Amino acid sequence: MPDFVLEPVGWVESTLVDRASAPRQGDEGAPEAWLVFDAQFAQALSDLRAGQEVLVLTWLDRARRDVLSVHPRDDETRPLTGVFSTRSADRPNPIGLHRVLILAVEGTRLKAASLEALDGTPILDVKPLLQAQTER
Amino acid sequence: MPDFVLEPVGWVESTLVDRASAPRQGDEGAPEAWLVFDAQFAQALSDLRAGQEVLVLTWLDRARRDVLSVHPRDDETRPLTGVFSTRSADRPNPIGLHRVLILAVEGTRLKAASLEALDGTPILDVKPLLQAQTER
Repeated sequence: MPDFVLEPVGWVESTLVDRASAPRQGDEGAPEAWLVFDAQFAQALSDLRAGQEVLVLTWLDRARRDVLSVHPRDDETRPLTGVFSTRSADRPNPIGLHRVLILAVEGTRLKAASLEALDGTPILDVKPLLQAQTER
Repeated sequence: MPDFVLEPVGWVESTLVDRASAPRQGDEGAPEAWLVFDAQFAQALSDLRAGQEVLVLTWLDRARRDVLSVHPRDDETRPLTGVFSTRSADRPNPIGLHRVLILAVEGTRLKAASLEALDGTPILDVKPLLQAQTER
């Protein structure tokens, strides 16, 4: 695998199928979803358990990569803002970062309580919450 | 830019030059560092200011991608743990996630209060803190 080339480790299964209907953040009414991992990565997720909160990184494959500033939340009354100060999906490297509560683990499938990513979105990584988050 | 190929937007300038001497987390004595962005991305970072805390995503280019489980913190007395339950740099897609306080902005250079990434590490993205973090 050459440098700078991502290898998806799994895919999102969701009822969300297009950006127009997707909530902008996972806490704004996003549905349950499944994180379906390729069997070759089973060992990497072997210590994930129902009840844990984790960070899931995805590749927002339907985003635009040539967008450097946006009106936050697509509200044109708000001033154009550099994408590094926003959570816009459109950005040079459209990596999605999602805080997810694991509801269930079934083999290499994880059920997420709430996820704003679209069906078919590639999964890149799963990480523990940042330390400052677990201290809350 | 084809799918799944990352385009670095900048690079870390740091006194940290090898993994052996680097702290494992930014809050464990990591030095100040500069985030040096390519001029073509100036618009994306135009709303970042000194005093803000942000998430910086990097590509941990010296990591191993074939490692699926590790002894946490390289402590061999601790059981092998799937990398998705750890913050190991070694993982299938070695994306680093760093919570960073911006000390200064000089053109397209940002001074970070504390960063555990090595000198020369490619920068992929900058994002606002997750909502749950800003509510603390």
